[in-house]
Amino acid sequence: MDTLARGSESSRGSAYGRSVIGREVRELDTPALLIDAAALDRNLRRMADDCAALGKALRPHAKAHKSPVVGLKQLAAGAVGVTCAKIGEAEVMIAGGIHDVLISTVVGSPAKAVRVAELAQESKVATVIDSETGARWLSEAATAVGTTVDVLIDVNVGQDRTGVQPEDALALASAVVGMRSLRLRGLQGYEGNLQHVYSLDERARRVGLAMDQLARAYSELSSAGFDMTWVTTGGTGTYRLGATRSFVTEVQPGSYIVMDADYLKVAGHPFEVALSVLTTVIGTYAGRAIVDAGSKSVSTDAGQPVLKDRMGIAFATAGDEHGKLTSEGDEVGELRVGQKLQLLPSHCDTTVNLHDVFYVTNSGTVEDVWPISARGRVQ
Amino acid sequence: MDTLARGSESSRGSAYGRSVIGREVRELDTPALLIDAAALDRNLRRMADDCAALGKALRPHAKAHKSPVVGLKQLAAGAVGVTCAKIGEAEVMIAGGIHDVLISTVVGSPAKAVRVAELAQESKVATVIDSETGARWLSEAATAVGTTVDVLIDVNVGQDRTGVQPEDALALASAVVGMRSLRLRGLQGYEGNLQHVYSLDERARRVGLAMDQLARAYSELSSAGFDMTWVTTGGTGTYRLGATRSFVTEVQPGSYIVMDADYLKVAGHPFEVALSVLTTVIGTYAGRAIVDAGSKSVSTDAGQPVLKDRMGIAFATAGDEHGKLTSEGDEVGELRVGQKLQLLPSHCDTTVNLHDVFYVTNSGTVEDVWPISARGRVQ
Repeated sequence: MDTLARGSESSRGSAYGRSVIGREVRELDTPALLIDAAALDRNLRRMADDCAALGKALRPHAKAHKSPVVGLKQLAAGAVGVTCAKIGEAEVMIAGGIHDVLISTVVGSPAKAVRVAELAQESKVATVIDSETGARWLSEAATAVGTTVDVLIDVNVGQDRTGVQPEDALALASAVVGMRSLRLRGLQGYEGNLQHVYSLDERARRVGLAMDQLARAYSELSSAGFDMTWVTTGGTGTYRLGATRSFVTEVQPGSYIVMDADYLKVAGHPFEVALSVLTTVIGTYAGRAIVDAGSKSVSTDAGQPVLKDRMGIAFATAGDEHGKLTSEGDEVGELRVGQKLQLLPSHCDTTVNLHDVFYVTNSGTVEDVWPISARGRVQ
Repeated sequence: MDTLARGSESSRGSAYGRSVIGREVRELDTPALLIDAAALDRNLRRMADDCAALGKALRPHAKAHKSPVVGLKQLAAGAVGVTCAKIGEAEVMIAGGIHDVLISTVVGSPAKAVRVAELAQESKVATVIDSETGARWLSEAATAVGTTVDVLIDVNVGQDRTGVQPEDALALASAVVGMRSLRLRGLQGYEGNLQHVYSLDERARRVGLAMDQLARAYSELSSAGFDMTWVTTGGTGTYRLGATRSFVTEVQPGSYIVMDADYLKVAGHPFEVALSVLTTVIGTYAGRAIVDAGSKSVSTDAGQPVLKDRMGIAFATAGDEHGKLTSEGDEVGELRVGQKLQLLPSHCDTTVNLHDVFYVTNSGTVEDVWPISARGRVQ
């Protein structure tokens, strides 16, 4: 028996703890979510440099990593703050020391408005609105606690999710002006549906159309004298394209920090996959091997993960806690029980959300353990 | 503004706490995972009664609920113990007061064997084996800590995941007999691939073939004099069918306790859906409404969830934190921002694993909050 492995993995409760720091990565119990520290650092620097060159502010989306540790690194590299999908994520980021947050989802109830207002009392918190109802809830909540909330009008630029139609932005802006405790600052137009259009030409064409929608709202509101000094758009697949427009002041990419296998198919970005799920072969059989990672360890909403450095082997989830490996050739026949492999998730956001910690690796050694503190914060 | 809602939802940190007990369900912040207490109790009693009538022991699979609170209810209703997919789940169940656990997944490393052996020191813990390598790791680990581990041979009955072929079970049993600190008790043959075969006739036919495989291993090992007093099989879709065989002593269904929308299509069971995800309409637009639950709140590995009591409206995840509602008729047009709806997940196990607590409801009131303590315990 491998005594090193025993020592590092046998203590119950310490499985997710920092006691593994300094150990070899292959000693980690599995499944375990890994971040390659060097790849993450390169992604961090490339995005910061790119945004500086483009002349746009960078407000990375924290939904991808859900960890204030990573968010603080983004700030240290020049980001102006972070973006959060949920108020619960914003609460975790603020508790972790990040005090400039844009919540990119509209509030859907008076109670949510109260939570936003309470956060805005102590930190720089802005959010988006797309209805008079939501704006009024926010205004009342902010007034009740004696604070002011910065808001952006969420514009539907073609994703057909939330957001007012461009032609309706002016009416909403005019209504907001009459509400207490809200300060209209600009626009959000997120083209989430275009991030994974693989072809750069096709993506550029469609982002152009989306930015035309945002431009229409921008022009009408600017002409009417509204403050339009904060216009945010873009994800990892589109920020460079949106940033060609002068009215865009800020981009909010998330995935770039760790990336995933699906983004490898998206042409025209400089980022590399820093994320993987370490898994163990628990059985070898005629024509297949089984590993200990299934749909509770690696998400499949964007397809199956792929094996790192073993392109001849295909992975398919085989239930919540198992994965099945097969190969055209004999690659699978050469695997042995106990052997460890790395899976590259197809979707970083939903895979990260399944785990409690990142194991940060550097040249085969566990360098650090970072809590994914906002995991599960869907409220 | 609804002051009740403010009171119940506005305190940060208490979002997942017990302070909501006694409130109306519609006051809960969302997304929130609900359990209907009455439906759960009926499922609990039906399964217990059914297994008593069938003359088989019931060892419910805790992977479905991941909560010792629910496991203890199953024990109180007559279950002999629980089944767990992962050692981490078993650790949580034992810490929660459940001291009879079968781990239904083969160990894949010496370190995992050590964790099983350590658990077996203090509680009644059994597991399954399908290779001499795995058996030897377990034997060495159990010997090292001075305990004995009960083992079942995992037989492949057609799922083609783990398990020895029936014709190879005798050789493995013969090898295990020579190993210290292991006590061979019987067999596991899990037909996980047949749980969701919707047609009862087709499912019965295929379970028959699977049980023929298990019967072959059983006969050979019994004839050779091995202890075969523990033979476990069956899930929610198949336990009644497998239980027709006399050699089967125990069934391990999991989903029956809360069920899901996909299981509603599976004919021939008496269980009802007790699980739902409460979600809020955050925006209404031409031809669609958007709710605050996406793929981080409700799993889609078995398809999209469906709306409870609103069959005219279709749900589709629209990213990690949004869902899109559409309808053929005008049902969606009648929805209002702030309105709350219930989604019935397509797959209970993976949806439960996204949440930290169950909100237990009874006639529209929050009756209790149960921690999903084994959420994320994939190791």
